[in-house]
Amino acid sequence: MENLFATERLRHLLPRIQAFVETELYPLETTDYLSGNFSVVEPLLLQKRARVKEAGLWGLHLSAADSGLDLTLCEFGQISEILARSPFGHFVFNTQAPDIGNTELLHKYAPEALKERYLKPLMAGEIRSCFSMTEPEFAGSNPTRMGTTAIKDGTDYLINGHKWFTSSADGAAFAVVMAVTNPDAARHRQASQILVPMDTPGVTLVRNIPIMGHSGDSWASHAELRYENVRVPQANLIGAEGAGFLLAQERLGPGRIHHCMRFIGIAERSFELMCRYAVSRELEEGTVLGDKQFIQGFIADSRAEIDAARLLVLRTARHIDELGAAAVREEISMIKFFTANTMLRVIDRAIQVHGALGMTSDILLSYWYVHERGARIYDGADEVHKSALARSILKGYGLDVKRKETR
Amino acid sequence: MENLFATERLRHLLPRIQAFVETELYPLETTDYLSGNFSVVEPLLLQKRARVKEAGLWGLHLSAADSGLDLTLCEFGQISEILARSPFGHFVFNTQAPDIGNTELLHKYAPEALKERYLKPLMAGEIRSCFSMTEPEFAGSNPTRMGTTAIKDGTDYLINGHKWFTSSADGAAFAVVMAVTNPDAARHRQASQILVPMDTPGVTLVRNIPIMGHSGDSWASHAELRYENVRVPQANLIGAEGAGFLLAQERLGPGRIHHCMRFIGIAERSFELMCRYAVSRELEEGTVLGDKQFIQGFIADSRAEIDAARLLVLRTARHIDELGAAAVREEISMIKFFTANTMLRVIDRAIQVHGALGMTSDILLSYWYVHERGARIYDGADEVHKSALARSILKGYGLDVKRKETR
Amino acid sequence: MENLFATERLRHLLPRIQAFVETELYPLETTDYLSGNFSVVEPLLLQKRARVKEAGLWGLHLSAADSGLDLTLCEFGQISEILARSPFGHFVFNTQAPDIGNTELLHKYAPEALKERYLKPLMAGEIRSCFSMTEPEFAGSNPTRMGTTAIKDGTDYLINGHKWFTSSADGAAFAVVMAVTNPDAARHRQASQILVPMDTPGVTLVRNIPIMGHSGDSWASHAELRYENVRVPQANLIGAEGAGFLLAQERLGPGRIHHCMRFIGIAERSFELMCRYAVSRELEEGTVLGDKQFIQGFIADSRAEIDAARLLVLRTARHIDELGAAAVREEISMIKFFTANTMLRVIDRAIQVHGALGMTSDILLSYWYVHERGARIYDGADEVHKSALARSILKGYGLDVKRKETR
Amino acid sequence: MENLFATERLRHLLPRIQAFVETELYPLETTDYLSGNFSVVEPLLLQKRARVKEAGLWGLHLSAADSGLDLTLCEFGQISEILARSPFGHFVFNTQAPDIGNTELLHKYAPEALKERYLKPLMAGEIRSCFSMTEPEFAGSNPTRMGTTAIKDGTDYLINGHKWFTSSADGAAFAVVMAVTNPDAARHRQASQILVPMDTPGVTLVRNIPIMGHSGDSWASHAELRYENVRVPQANLIGAEGAGFLLAQERLGPGRIHHCMRFIGIAERSFELMCRYAVSRELEEGTVLGDKQFIQGFIADSRAEIDAARLLVLRTARHIDELGAAAVREEISMIKFFTANTMLRVIDRAIQVHGALGMTSDILLSYWYVHERGARIYDGADEVHKSALARSILKGYGLDVKRKETR
Repeated sequence: MENLFATERLRHLLPRIQAFVETELYPLETTDYLSGNFSVVEPLLLQKRARVKEAGLWGLHLSAADSGLDLTLCEFGQISEILARSPFGHFVFNTQAPDIGNTELLHKYAPEALKERYLKPLMAGEIRSCFSMTEPEFAGSNPTRMGTTAIKDGTDYLINGHKWFTSSADGAAFAVVMAVTNPDAARHRQASQILVPMDTPGVTLVRNIPIMGHSGDSWASHAELRYENVRVPQANLIGAEGAGFLLAQERLGPGRIHHCMRFIGIAERSFELMCRYAVSRELEEGTVLGDKQFIQGFIADSRAEIDAARLLVLRTARHIDELGAAAVREEISMIKFFTANTMLRVIDRAIQVHGALGMTSDILLSYWYVHERGARIYDGADEVHKSALARSILKGYGLDVKRKETR
Repeated sequence: MENLFATERLRHLLPRIQAFVETELYPLETTDYLSGNFSVVEPLLLQKRARVKEAGLWGLHLSAADSGLDLTLCEFGQISEILARSPFGHFVFNTQAPDIGNTELLHKYAPEALKERYLKPLMAGEIRSCFSMTEPEFAGSNPTRMGTTAIKDGTDYLINGHKWFTSSADGAAFAVVMAVTNPDAARHRQASQILVPMDTPGVTLVRNIPIMGHSGDSWASHAELRYENVRVPQANLIGAEGAGFLLAQERLGPGRIHHCMRFIGIAERSFELMCRYAVSRELEEGTVLGDKQFIQGFIADSRAEIDAARLLVLRTARHIDELGAAAVREEISMIKFFTANTMLRVIDRAIQVHGALGMTSDILLSYWYVHERGARIYDGADEVHKSALARSILKGYGLDVKRKETR
Repeated sequence: MENLFATERLRHLLPRIQAFVETELYPLETTDYLSGNFSVVEPLLLQKRARVKEAGLWGLHLSAADSGLDLTLCEFGQISEILARSPFGHFVFNTQAPDIGNTELLHKYAPEALKERYLKPLMAGEIRSCFSMTEPEFAGSNPTRMGTTAIKDGTDYLINGHKWFTSSADGAAFAVVMAVTNPDAARHRQASQILVPMDTPGVTLVRNIPIMGHSGDSWASHAELRYENVRVPQANLIGAEGAGFLLAQERLGPGRIHHCMRFIGIAERSFELMCRYAVSRELEEGTVLGDKQFIQGFIADSRAEIDAARLLVLRTARHIDELGAAAVREEISMIKFFTANTMLRVIDRAIQVHGALGMTSDILLSYWYVHERGARIYDGADEVHKSALARSILKGYGLDVKRKETR
Repeated sequence: MENLFATERLRHLLPRIQAFVETELYPLETTDYLSGNFSVVEPLLLQKRARVKEAGLWGLHLSAADSGLDLTLCEFGQISEILARSPFGHFVFNTQAPDIGNTELLHKYAPEALKERYLKPLMAGEIRSCFSMTEPEFAGSNPTRMGTTAIKDGTDYLINGHKWFTSSADGAAFAVVMAVTNPDAARHRQASQILVPMDTPGVTLVRNIPIMGHSGDSWASHAELRYENVRVPQANLIGAEGAGFLLAQERLGPGRIHHCMRFIGIAERSFELMCRYAVSRELEEGTVLGDKQFIQGFIADSRAEIDAARLLVLRTARHIDELGAAAVREEISMIKFFTANTMLRVIDRAIQVHGALGMTSDILLSYWYVHERGARIYDGADEVHKSALARSILKGYGLDVKRKETR
């Protein structure tokens, strides 16, 4: 625990959570589970969820009103790091994306009827959900360009569109769909978020997109979807009409902390695996990998970079807690690319230290090498964040940013 | 074609080969083939081999005596680059590792009887083979430490050992096995190479090791094997007894050129995919990815690095042709880490330019991201080559290298 | 101010100090002063010291007993950053190395008589001092190897030795000299620190060593010195005999914070210069440097890296305040290489943004490019710190570090 | 010598030149000469020029008609590398920039009268010259923006303007001045090159600009100049009116090879210094720097990078020889940033290996650290070349480059 950000309840909670992760989840890191589809390990994970509930650790992300702990973002971020040490941690604690984001969204913006029907089972871990935004036809770096429409028809919306990278759609009970409802409004005011049950006629899961050769399944999948004349009541609107981007952006603040602390957790665990192997792998009689400066360099750089990244993220989390996300937009951009790159460097070094073993599914690292490469792409590619951050900074020095944005 | 290294026959051959690869093999880069096991596409590839023969392009790596072209290493390297533009190119032309290396080995060192029985069908593409050297219990950076033994018993060898990363063992007709035959000799003189038919009793393919989550199969696999009281005639010895490391090292010279030029081909194709996407992916009305300096930076750096790497490898190939591999050991180390890292950087940039699409198996890049990470590890990790290269250089300045090696 | 580490008195002090630096010291950044010897600007700086005293800002580093503020290390670190924004800041506030370190040393370990005679005028800014440790004949990475000796002769020490990189010796009133007093003790117990007045017979300032072409002078210089039969009373011993390395290491804790926060201040000011130029330098009608993504990349990366480095250093400062330096040795190693490299990258990028102007002494950047390159070398080269950090970490995983150290 | 590019006469010439450089010029690398102004060593260098003539090595860059050797660019490039091993090499052989470029320019484009008067003594080393193009008011990345004008007045030009970074103006006999003569022509057709004797009334050398704290003098200086109503005959026009940029660009082709091979020479010499020190500096009994993997990594990376860069440059030189510079514009961009960055990385590593000594003027490295940082800026900053290269490549993929250039 980074003691600058320690709190009394974290001092009690974190060791218990870490013990759970180590005792209950590390043993699941078998070659089969690391190389197989999620559905193979899922039944076991659902059993582990029962253990989480028994241990009184269920619902760590929830408000007190929902039997949660009302943790600050800075506190929950530190829990997120610990959970991320296992690839199964967040799922077992029901704090996995995109459900955690949908939980926050429904909690704040859904009408009561939707809350009753969808939020409650979501918080109980009885159903899963997805968030359907990205479209193959438009560059993700400019989210306001979108082809999916939701047209009013009586008391319903009629939704048509083509989405992909709708993570965890396979098996989800509902999707939150971004669709253009107000095409004549200003660019950032055109889209809305609408809850669409996955069993609504016209919703087709075209495929789970193979990522790095893995189609995946269930929660661990990224779907291509078609919405063809999908009809849902207008009462399924979440938040105000035209507020789709606003809500999406609001989601990004806390979501960014979750993600980045997850990156830190992965980096930290990779670091431990690297160190452990470095002291145990013998090169010749009396010499182990860790005696070599190349390996020492990997370790020293990784230690400094992970510590720096963690401090950066937790500072931002505290700022969001104290000042709100809008006040620290620059920090929220900054932690994304800094942390994602740090994680990927550490994973890569840890693999290199393990040699051939590092590429196998006998250990955890290759799983992350494959599944976390996206960290530099989703939620804003490095390049998008760097440009946005720099332009925001330069605006403070007098750069006429507006002018350029219209180019 | 790099015109410094152009030859008359390459001027005729290369365009024909490239046309074949583009026409016959690019269409196989479908999502299914990129994400599926090799056995799914294999039947098609075997048909393509027939087309290669029809086109008179079979056996490009062979000597004139074997109906080949007697190409220099520098010439064949340039063909290797072109073949590598498709993940199926080398297999279809029967120039894939490890068979190409075993072909060279048997050609030079196998007794006639073995040649007749194994080399001929290997050159004809009727059988496949593997090379069984690496052991899980010993660090690859020190190849002279080895647990597998071959003990003389009558006119046979009795082989016992545990190997892994025996690539393409699945479906292979025989393995060339490294085993200690002379435990009392000097360290580099203890092992021999012995041909072991895969159907010999006692040979067990434990599993195809899952790499990055993919067990793979057939040629595209990396096996763990056990040799338990495997009995083969001593006539299966390749080269002299105790010459195992010598032969393995000899294999490394040309093999390094094959590999490195393969890396160059992969990098070049990734570069093309990156450029193509950069000019076609629209960010907003009238602006494409390629208009952005971040993307331009990826492209400019990649262009320079690939050109530099290719020159470095082809220079080494020519030197091996003219002076022999022993004379340019430093260069042979140098091209390995320089080229592998160049390739991996270019693949990574190309993925980044493609955004989410880059991670999918809808295009080629993620296939290479996953399957080529090993390039910095196998045949000597970066760290091993850098240290060896530097120590060799410093020896020229008076460093007492021997003293250190014994540490 | 990084608000995680803000304190009430810093909220008052920092803006006043920053205003002083900007108003009084920025105007001194003229081409002449940036390219000339220190003695040219020194008279002006001494006047500025009077202004510091008038403003009640003198002695910020001192204890309350010495009319200072008893600031924590974490507080003073933040002041150090602000002072470092001008190359003259620390000197004008009398907090410059090596005097600040000698002040701490004498304060804690000097006998009363030495304090009266040397510490008082040092704190008053009436004299300067130096610290004479490094020797040209021995690698700095192994400080326990040393040729300088101090042999007891009656009540005196007789000192003989050859030192270099004794910074600020030119014009100093005294040196603290590291010399072997106990050659038969364990390696870390052989040397002692002895105060030697510079006018003692036998002390020769051989030269101010030209660094990057600049010999420098006065405070801004690095001397080569010879000590030939230099006789000083044994009462000039600082701390216990044989405790030289211990004291030197103790000095490193707070000294590291001073240095690293100085690096941060330099990086931050360079960042500002880069941003300012980026918004003002026109490339063509309507386009400035800051509109270009390459420049935006420099800015975004620098912003993230500086913030990360500052958090890392201030965390360590707080830990030293709370737990003592001995408890956080790893952190003290880590911040050195991380921060020095961050600073040098930011300076380099800022120069690149300025183009030809960046290399001139018309602006500040080239001054730092030249004078701060040493940051990756002095007080432990990057390589030494990385190796030490990694070995300390790996010790926690069971590495037998001792064994290796003796190699 | 890179044997791919060896020629018969180089086999004779290069060893002789290298012997000269080592015997005659290395001894001049004293602390005084490395830290002092050029004028201090200049008299000695002029004596060395006499030795060059005696040795029959004068005028290596000249055509046979001018008693030169008619070397190809690829041959002279390799000589340039050897000369660059000493900071005084090019000057002593009279092949220093900007005189070598002006020699080529006058040779091809000057009217006979100017040749007689200026080219002959320039080739004889009796006078020096400068090239006056860059202006402080305009960004160097866009050379077509220029404030200096040359207006016809009778048979004269009347020149007014403000220039800086006119290298070697101090002591030069004449400047070649870029000035707008045709303000109404298309952008690239507005400027002309005019020869201006430095003693013409109205030419003022404002100052030698301090670079990294060094004003320098004589040949080793970079001047700020004012041209106020400077009157020269129109017969001093070089090439056609309006052809200024064309000639400047033509100069860039061979000039780029000279520069880049100079970078290679500097890198190679730095590499040698690094290796030499690595084997001789003892860390402890029996262990030298070169035994350490960090140092080995510096050496291995440097070796590969220098070799790669050299091959890249010599390939381009050969292409220019065979195809002309216009055919290989992309290569000419590529070698600039690749080689400059390689050189600077190698210098930096070599300094790091030398520790404190590396920063001093007791050895050569800090001289280059200071004086070669500009390599990433002058003649097109890295960023300019990368963007130009990428846009040229992408044009081949269909990018509408024109459209963007007007933005």
